[in-house]
Amino acid sequence: MSERGRLRIVGLGPGGKDWVTPEASGWIASATDVIGYAPYLDRISLREGQKRHASGNRAEMERARNALQLAEEGRQVALVSGGDPGVFAMAAAVFEAIDNGKPGWRALDIAVSPGISAMQAVAARAGAPLGHDFCAISLSDNLKPWPLIEKRLSAAASADFVIALYNPASAARPRRIHDAFALLRNLKRAATPVIFAHAAGQADEYILIETLATADPCRADMGTLIIIGSSATRVIARGIGTPFVYTSRRAD
Amino acid sequence: MSERGRLRIVGLGPGGKDWVTPEASGWIASATDVIGYAPYLDRISLREGQKRHASGNRAEMERARNALQLAEEGRQVALVSGGDPGVFAMAAAVFEAIDNGKPGWRALDIAVSPGISAMQAVAARAGAPLGHDFCAISLSDNLKPWPLIEKRLSAAASADFVIALYNPASAARPRRIHDAFALLRNLKRAATPVIFAHAAGQADEYILIETLATADPCRADMGTLIIIGSSATRVIARGIGTPFVYTSRRAD
Repeated sequence: MSERGRLRIVGLGPGGKDWVTPEASGWIASATDVIGYAPYLDRISLREGQKRHASGNRAEMERARNALQLAEEGRQVALVSGGDPGVFAMAAAVFEAIDNGKPGWRALDIAVSPGISAMQAVAARAGAPLGHDFCAISLSDNLKPWPLIEKRLSAAASADFVIALYNPASAARPRRIHDAFALLRNLKRAATPVIFAHAAGQADEYILIETLATADPCRADMGTLIIIGSSATRVIARGIGTPFVYTSRRAD
Repeated sequence: MSERGRLRIVGLGPGGKDWVTPEASGWIASATDVIGYAPYLDRISLREGQKRHASGNRAEMERARNALQLAEEGRQVALVSGGDPGVFAMAAAVFEAIDNGKPGWRALDIAVSPGISAMQAVAARAGAPLGHDFCAISLSDNLKPWPLIEKRLSAAASADFVIALYNPASAARPRRIHDAFALLRNLKRAATPVIFAHAAGQADEYILIETLATADPCRADMGTLIIIGSSATRVIARGIGTPFVYTSRRAD
């Protein structure tokens, strides 16, 4: 009889060991098998005897099923994800695989370790733009229809949420961020602060503070996260250094 | 001339040392002065010589100005917050204090360290309910008018976001969560999954999986966080243990 397996779904944060929680480090250290998208695995030092299972970025469901299968076979599996696995990442893929997979998978010992998400890292670098009511929307229309995304953008603008945009553009979808900006420019003030962040927490990080009128959606790629302010979002100019951006807890 | 002061705004996560990032621990360890709401300070072991500045929960702006003043005097200040200081917490109060305070405060060395927010902790415990487009709304109408909160709840329901509700109730505002549930019950399916979480990550943690029809808003207090699903949120029943809740990346 095999030892009882387990699956731990672990968030590494957006980059940098200083944002990896002790829980995440501990769960990875105690795994027999570590599985994930190759660049995330490259951020971890595995010890002698730990088995590394690298996969491509697109193969989310296959990676989820592979992790479940290994756990079912009695392995101690850590499935690693960038950011928070619970926010636009691997945790939902695993539970979807369980929901549509072998009945035995429901009885497995499964747990999720949260991580710092990209929007939180960007917010911390910029000031406190997520300090009040906000929403997070993925612009990827791989799995949901574009009209639903438009509906969510319109609702978020009309109810004056701060908006964090995930997956703003990819090689296959270069125009969606332009469509999103065109829609938001019709609904929100031109002076609305916009934060364009690339690779927050990584070596090539940069953050631009723009306005909805001046921001150039051409800058967006897969490594970009965009935060669009509400009417209560303010920019504090400074003599030196990037301005601070925060969202007041007071409504106008 | 005094040494150059600095202010670090640090998130401790929702509870438990395993969710405190190395950055947060390091920034607290290197501070000369640690300031915060007393129960958060109680979670930290200060070393000999570090000065502890405890304050009440309500005195956010006063605490922010106090922290800025200490930094201006050349102290190395860590201002601690539960969860993520950038999400309904101290960071926005500090930047608001700067925006309306002494011009010299803008030139201070200030940085924010993100933390695991309460909604992420609850999501991790439950499965992956925040796996797709979601919003976070505070039900506190201390600083914003209730009609704006109603507008955001309606927009979030009509655009089918997952909804995380912060500050659902307090002794001074016991009825707002009842109003919010009444509104949402008119707009969303009765079977919509609802997660009632109390003190996630702490010793007295509990999590209830309900539906919008069965959930009892009387259970909410200041320590409660509520997540209300979208039409793509599913519950996976298990023979033993709490069911998993996740939001599919596929729209219906």
